[in-house]
Amino acid sequence: MSSPSVSYSITVRLEMPAQPSAVSTITTTVERAGGIVTAVDVSASGMNRLQVDVTCATGGEDDAKHVVGALSDLDGVTIGRVSDRTFLAHLGGKIEIQPKMQIRHRDDLSLIYTPGVGRVSQQLAAHPEDAVRLTIKRNTIAVVTDGSAVLGLGNIGPTAALPVMEGKAALFKRFAGIDAFPICLDTQDVDEIVRTVKIIAPVFAGINLEDISAPRCFEIEERLRAELDVPVFHDDQHGTAIVALAALRNALKVVGKNIEDVRIVQSGAGAAGSAILRLMLAAGARNVVVADVEGIIRTDRPNLAPSLQWVAEATRGGEHPGTMQDALVGADVFIGVSAPNLLTESDVEAMAEGSIVFALANPLPEIDPAIATRHAAVVATGRSDFANQINNVLAFPGVFRGLLDGRSTRITDEMLVAAATALADVVTPEELNATYIVPSVFHQSLHTAIAASVQAAAEADSQSRSSVTQS
Amino acid sequence: MSSPSVSYSITVRLEMPAQPSAVSTITTTVERAGGIVTAVDVSASGMNRLQVDVTCATGGEDDAKHVVGALSDLDGVTIGRVSDRTFLAHLGGKIEIQPKMQIRHRDDLSLIYTPGVGRVSQQLAAHPEDAVRLTIKRNTIAVVTDGSAVLGLGNIGPTAALPVMEGKAALFKRFAGIDAFPICLDTQDVDEIVRTVKIIAPVFAGINLEDISAPRCFEIEERLRAELDVPVFHDDQHGTAIVALAALRNALKVVGKNIEDVRIVQSGAGAAGSAILRLMLAAGARNVVVADVEGIIRTDRPNLAPSLQWVAEATRGGEHPGTMQDALVGADVFIGVSAPNLLTESDVEAMAEGSIVFALANPLPEIDPAIATRHAAVVATGRSDFANQINNVLAFPGVFRGLLDGRSTRITDEMLVAAATALADVVTPEELNATYIVPSVFHQSLHTAIAASVQAAAEADSQSRSSVTQS
Repeated sequence: MSSPSVSYSITVRLEMPAQPSAVSTITTTVERAGGIVTAVDVSASGMNRLQVDVTCATGGEDDAKHVVGALSDLDGVTIGRVSDRTFLAHLGGKIEIQPKMQIRHRDDLSLIYTPGVGRVSQQLAAHPEDAVRLTIKRNTIAVVTDGSAVLGLGNIGPTAALPVMEGKAALFKRFAGIDAFPICLDTQDVDEIVRTVKIIAPVFAGINLEDISAPRCFEIEERLRAELDVPVFHDDQHGTAIVALAALRNALKVVGKNIEDVRIVQSGAGAAGSAILRLMLAAGARNVVVADVEGIIRTDRPNLAPSLQWVAEATRGGEHPGTMQDALVGADVFIGVSAPNLLTESDVEAMAEGSIVFALANPLPEIDPAIATRHAAVVATGRSDFANQINNVLAFPGVFRGLLDGRSTRITDEMLVAAATALADVVTPEELNATYIVPSVFHQSLHTAIAASVQAAAEADSQSRSSVTQS
Repeated sequence: MSSPSVSYSITVRLEMPAQPSAVSTITTTVERAGGIVTAVDVSASGMNRLQVDVTCATGGEDDAKHVVGALSDLDGVTIGRVSDRTFLAHLGGKIEIQPKMQIRHRDDLSLIYTPGVGRVSQQLAAHPEDAVRLTIKRNTIAVVTDGSAVLGLGNIGPTAALPVMEGKAALFKRFAGIDAFPICLDTQDVDEIVRTVKIIAPVFAGINLEDISAPRCFEIEERLRAELDVPVFHDDQHGTAIVALAALRNALKVVGKNIEDVRIVQSGAGAAGSAILRLMLAAGARNVVVADVEGIIRTDRPNLAPSLQWVAEATRGGEHPGTMQDALVGADVFIGVSAPNLLTESDVEAMAEGSIVFALANPLPEIDPAIATRHAAVVATGRSDFANQINNVLAFPGVFRGLLDGRSTRITDEMLVAAATALADVVTPEELNATYIVPSVFHQSLHTAIAASVQAAAEADSQSRSSVTQS
């Protein structure tokens, strides 16, 4: 039985005999069956019967059935409708489109539609650059997926990916005031994806790629960056990398080490893994070893995939002839973006004093964090039910806010590092400790702090480029 | 000098000596210069100076300059910023995306984003048909253009078309609660347009094509209708046709004639023209003659374009060897969707008693409506400054509301005729007269009446198709 979570929350409508202990009988029964009661509502009452709606968090589908079963076993209880709070929250979708102005009478129509709008269109025909002033382009981005690698669910296609993209769009607005619209592509062909995004680009000031499988995501991102004049961000790579680097910065502060000096062992070189590696190197890391499912990545590994060549060259796998476990002995940092249960307790025990373990595989980490904390000084995972969650939502709203406000036409590593530094610095020295290396996503100044740093980096980038052009 | 309109409304900030007649001096000056004052605001006041913001409607750009010039000629007046109300209304764009639920704490996040959303995605992977229940698809349509025929402005491209598409999206929400998002395509290749719309289709329950030039729009619509399982509506064709047919029904009531009996002469066989013709025939018209720039369309016309073949066959051009003007002699109805000033006063005079003239060319009609009314019993145009405006916004919100509510997978002529009939019937017998053959777009029950009729037609269509499949 898993621990109860609101994402498996159910509301059970039941009828039972009216008696003084009615409600307490129900709550006790739910709790004994492993649920946590979050609301009880007597929704109707008769002569000697009560109708009660009880809402409770459960540990999953089976646990929910167990709770309902326990309630139906009670004397005189009849179970009515059982509704699932998560599905209720998604009914009809999670975002909507609103006019920004009232449309009350003929004058309003003439202003925002014909004939007034014709003048604005004429202005844009003559000066397309005014679109950032006179249209939604100013604040609108596309959240683009082909549904090929959705959450931990795999290749479930564009329609099944839509709830995730809607959720992402809702978070963009909630945390950074950005208008994001889901684009779910009914193709998984790289050429078609690139071409389609280019064709629909006129409306958007930025592209957020999402849940596209590796290695296709690398090529799609690279080609779109080359062909579009708006920033293209692949959240699964760069969002994860920003949060991981921010968390690593703060974890290193906790143990009193420098990123330049530590030895880092990374497991996984997929989309997230290669982005994390690249950002750690940009931030000053000098001693990194990366392993994938075939072992440590090194220039002399037979049949090394072309996409891993740069990893082999930028890291120090050549100094480690053994396995990843061997390399881990005496290492300061482990970063896992790979597969469940790769590490044992003794692997962590063998690391250096004050070790840092980021076990980011989802939903099951490389090692149970409860076990890792027995030996590591700082432990982080991707899970929300453990301290130090490496969660992309900490980064992507502020990053895009900064890109839009800085009118950036591209994304550089400097901007990503700036975002990570700003994110890390939101945690004050007084707050920082081994179980608080990243702030809450609801932290008051988190997203504005990241946005300000990214905007400054974007403006510096555009200045340096225009001075290069002029010289 | 044109008549003043709010779509050329300006706000002038000026400073002037503080004196009792200050405001009246300004309003008199604006009015003498041809403007109409709609607001005066003393926005700051000093010892002996006033700052005044005066807003006025003008007849166009030149007229606005004339008003500003007249104000600056006043003794002691200094002109500050002049702002254009239409451009102000468009700043930052006209629509935004909003989450439907509050996101207040971690529990909300878990419900609408990971991990909760993962269960909804799994459900859709197994049952894609649930997307209409669990995602925005239920209520979301795409407003698609390639910018090739925007309003009367021609081929101004996708970016310049965006303000129009945003306005359309705003109207969809305002009048029918529909979430519409602008898709402005950076291609004018028919194959690419069809392919792109197919690729982005998973998010949408309907496609509204907009401002795509003929004859490309015919092929795009036809191919998308064949390949998609959601309704595809080209507003410039079908929206116009619905409103024109509704107006014709009511105009015929005013003059006491039947659509089956009247002789109709139509000028123009482009996108709107062919759609109007098709819908009039579906509604029972039996005696129609159509002319284009090369004369009356008849099967024996040399080099008849393939797209006009069906027009020649479905109409009675063969009975009219002369010009359109000749055919108009004794005709009951003229429908113009062609070019400015094609008709003379004597052409209208030569029509039958109780004639109906729809001069829909935009922005300049086939004949000045003031002249046409001297002889015709009912006159309609596409202009907002004359009675009986044939305006698509009367139709498209309700039509799509009905299609979405009826879960329609296609659009048939029966649904379009149902929309036209419902639209016409919104005008009660008590209200109906020669200058009120269509209701206001703000009419309380207009859009719901159209929606109900279209929904009923869509449900009948889907029932008849499923019974065909079963038999």
